[in-house]
Amino acid sequence: MADNNIYGEFKTEIVKPENIEKRSFEIILEELNQMGIKLPEKEDKIIRRCIHTSADFDYAKTLRFSENAVDICKDLIKKGASIITDTNMAKAGINEKRLSNFGGKVYCFMADPAVAAEAKERGVTRATVSMEKASQLPGKKIFASGNAPTALIRLYEMYKEGIFIPDFIIGVPVGFVNVEAAKDIIMTTDIPYIINKGRKGGSNIAAAICNSLIYDIPVDN
Amino acid sequence: MADNNIYGEFKTEIVKPENIEKRSFEIILEELNQMGIKLPEKEDKIIRRCIHTSADFDYAKTLRFSENAVDICKDLIKKGASIITDTNMAKAGINEKRLSNFGGKVYCFMADPAVAAEAKERGVTRATVSMEKASQLPGKKIFASGNAPTALIRLYEMYKEGIFIPDFIIGVPVGFVNVEAAKDIIMTTDIPYIINKGRKGGSNIAAAICNSLIYDIPVDN
Repeated sequence: MADNNIYGEFKTEIVKPENIEKRSFEIILEELNQMGIKLPEKEDKIIRRCIHTSADFDYAKTLRFSENAVDICKDLIKKGASIITDTNMAKAGINEKRLSNFGGKVYCFMADPAVAAEAKERGVTRATVSMEKASQLPGKKIFASGNAPTALIRLYEMYKEGIFIPDFIIGVPVGFVNVEAAKDIIMTTDIPYIINKGRKGGSNIAAAICNSLIYDIPVDN
Repeated sequence: MADNNIYGEFKTEIVKPENIEKRSFEIILEELNQMGIKLPEKEDKIIRRCIHTSADFDYAKTLRFSENAVDICKDLIKKGASIITDTNMAKAGINEKRLSNFGGKVYCFMADPAVAAEAKERGVTRATVSMEKASQLPGKKIFASGNAPTALIRLYEMYKEGIFIPDFIIGVPVGFVNVEAAKDIIMTTDIPYIINKGRKGGSNIAAAICNSLIYDIPVDN
């Protein structure tokens, strides 16, 4: 039974701080049921977290997972994979403290002055240079792009040229220039992926997907 | 005339890095025109930047501006107002370097251990305590909430109790528990605001609105 606070004509439901997220996930499930949408079991938490972070139910229809993507990515995290983002916003949104329990770190090279200088000189985006720099990092690497389709395009090119194979791609850039094509070309490779078809996505979506995977792995104490 | 890169069956438009954002804003304008939507002049840039950061045209219909909101907020920034966010993601997304030209800083107290401890002890959210702490900062203050409706609710309560009057509220929390009511009660006050009606919003939207305002103010050299 929910109590309410009344502010003039407005009513708010009293939900304990620790229960707000749980209540939100319940509401999302109820509404998906009303829409007749049943989410696949393994991907359910990720899809609901994307809806939770955007209030946009389109994500129930547009997220794409390669075969066993959820298990593959969780396994990488468990084994200490790092996550590379293409915005500092996404980096700030990922629970790095929890990720560090497994040995991983979160990297973003977008604000690196050397990256900016090289990008300017070559006439390419900072995301392009950031991906090249990230490809040199030691260990397993999960790429989470919430912003720059050129990040995905450079990963694809390096893969095609045989220079570098990303271990996993979370491909959810948002936007209007080459975003859809950049996602589609990643899905033609055999790199495991979680991708949101179409224009939508964002740093918040990239972080939500990473966190959903991280939170779903028990931490040994 | 746009050149293209061809990747198998996929084609990407070659757009110079420095022109990607401009091209995106043009596409958004073209599509709004096709939908028969004409944006109000003063608010146009903000609304298009919100669409740019989400690829969600709903923002053309749901953003609400109090009278002269854009001019009021730009004037506050020009005079050195600081911005307080309710997530570190939003903080990371705001161009603080450019804001600092006018004297302002960006604050977020959500990860402050003292805030977390007090919130736990009082059984309230960290956002509630963060807003109380922020109200003590010197100078003019713009509150940008992209996440926690309880941030807006606490600001409203302090205002009603006569303890504190925010100079401006950017109220775009996202979610399912009390988000709509929290936005609606702010709109009953005489605090100037930019608010997104309904459930949608987010840290990305909060940062986009702040940046749109900051970028629209010329920097003297």
